[in-house]
Amino acid sequence: MFTYHHKLRVLYGDTDQMGYVYYGNYGYYYEQARSEAIRSIGISYKQLEDEGTMMPIIRMNIKYIAPAYYDELLTIKTFVTHLPNRIIVFNYEVFNEKNELINEGETHLAFVDAATKRIKAAPPVLMDKMKTYFVND
Amino acid sequence: MFTYHHKLRVLYGDTDQMGYVYYGNYGYYYEQARSEAIRSIGISYKQLEDEGTMMPIIRMNIKYIAPAYYDELLTIKTFVTHLPNRIIVFNYEVFNEKNELINEGETHLAFVDAATKRIKAAPPVLMDKMKTYFVND
Amino acid sequence: MFTYHHKLRVLYGDTDQMGYVYYGNYGYYYEQARSEAIRSIGISYKQLEDEGTMMPIIRMNIKYIAPAYYDELLTIKTFVTHLPNRIIVFNYEVFNEKNELINEGETHLAFVDAATKRIKAAPPVLMDKMKTYFVND
Amino acid sequence: MFTYHHKLRVLYGDTDQMGYVYYGNYGYYYEQARSEAIRSIGISYKQLEDEGTMMPIIRMNIKYIAPAYYDELLTIKTFVTHLPNRIIVFNYEVFNEKNELINEGETHLAFVDAATKRIKAAPPVLMDKMKTYFVND
Repeated sequence: MFTYHHKLRVLYGDTDQMGYVYYGNYGYYYEQARSEAIRSIGISYKQLEDEGTMMPIIRMNIKYIAPAYYDELLTIKTFVTHLPNRIIVFNYEVFNEKNELINEGETHLAFVDAATKRIKAAPPVLMDKMKTYFVND
Repeated sequence: MFTYHHKLRVLYGDTDQMGYVYYGNYGYYYEQARSEAIRSIGISYKQLEDEGTMMPIIRMNIKYIAPAYYDELLTIKTFVTHLPNRIIVFNYEVFNEKNELINEGETHLAFVDAATKRIKAAPPVLMDKMKTYFVND
Repeated sequence: MFTYHHKLRVLYGDTDQMGYVYYGNYGYYYEQARSEAIRSIGISYKQLEDEGTMMPIIRMNIKYIAPAYYDELLTIKTFVTHLPNRIIVFNYEVFNEKNELINEGETHLAFVDAATKRIKAAPPVLMDKMKTYFVND
Repeated sequence: MFTYHHKLRVLYGDTDQMGYVYYGNYGYYYEQARSEAIRSIGISYKQLEDEGTMMPIIRMNIKYIAPAYYDELLTIKTFVTHLPNRIIVFNYEVFNEKNELINEGETHLAFVDAATKRIKAAPPVLMDKMKTYFVND
């Protein structure tokens, strides 16, 4: 399993008049966590894109457990539990400063050839790195 | 069943460099469709809130089928298939100008007492309107 | 002078915990008003872009006079006071439901050749339409 | 003069189909830089708000010099050139990874009493810190 922890400060612009982080902002938070998770293994999503792989999101599921508040320093745990093939699933758990789990979600991303726009297998540059986290699979 | 169709123009700020509507923006699109759907039955979410009912989102699930592009006039079909009690589920289907289904999702909203912050039953003002759409239930 | 009035409903996602529309959202509001203003004269920004003209914003100035609140139906008056050449300036005045001026701003957009990325004169398709609003200039 | 440098990674969701950071996102970037700048002197905006001071933005001016691109690590220099009284002006300069100045702007924030909603002088907790940066003023 691959796991990465990212810290993120809640901004004023993220909140709504209920005083909570607006529900529609979590996809953006997940992107931030996911891109830093990928970067932590020595790859950037930009590099994958430059080399001809697009990764559109095809599904997102979110469970809102408790609110996040302005100025909290959230920790987003990003993890991948299965070696990807044509799809990679990222799981997220968001913790507040009291270490309470306040939100969890998942995004499914497809690997798409930028030229043909067809789904393809994950590129070797990513698979080689990923395999090191799934030695017993 | 309660159904409402809302039209929405894709803005430049909604797109990302892939040329698609950014995946994280659909929650905001759903809110727009949902609030106009509620308004269509003579209630506004603001009114519910002013009368002491908050409706935080507790779940959102999204399936991205095909991209939405800049300047497209999307149609979002919002529907409620079950009479709400303590939770109301809104379903969404997003169609592009060719009438292709490009996205579908659902949001689950809880009814929460603004004073006690506890989950409660849907307020009568909403239930009375909703019941007219579920005559045989 | 060219003038257009656009109506826009404030969404929950637009507000912040102060209960006001977040200051950072006005650029997005202006885009919505501006693109409908251009569409009203029979052109779309998409069409200009498809024909090789990009229009990046080079300046934006905003004066926040009074808050906008959730669920208000705002009216954005967009106007162009000078016939454009290499730059077009859009002015905005935002009014709330009581017809109070709550916000005013301006955006300066350059005409840029998509191929060369150089600033150029406004394309004829836009100028021909615009000239009809400046008959005495 | 008070100066602070904040680093910020451009996300996919920040870009538009031109491949640039959307012009409407800079207010959000400025907020991020500004709040970390204030935090660097041992105060948080949240603390000021909790103690009864709101700081609504009353003006924002932005000059877009060159595009910011996906995945760039931007540096935002935030500076305050004048000791605040009833208004505080934050200036921003945004630099890309090549250290090119790509954007500059300013936001004017008023100090407002949360109870009376009237403009007031900057609270002592902020002024005491700020004065140390303007010893010769």
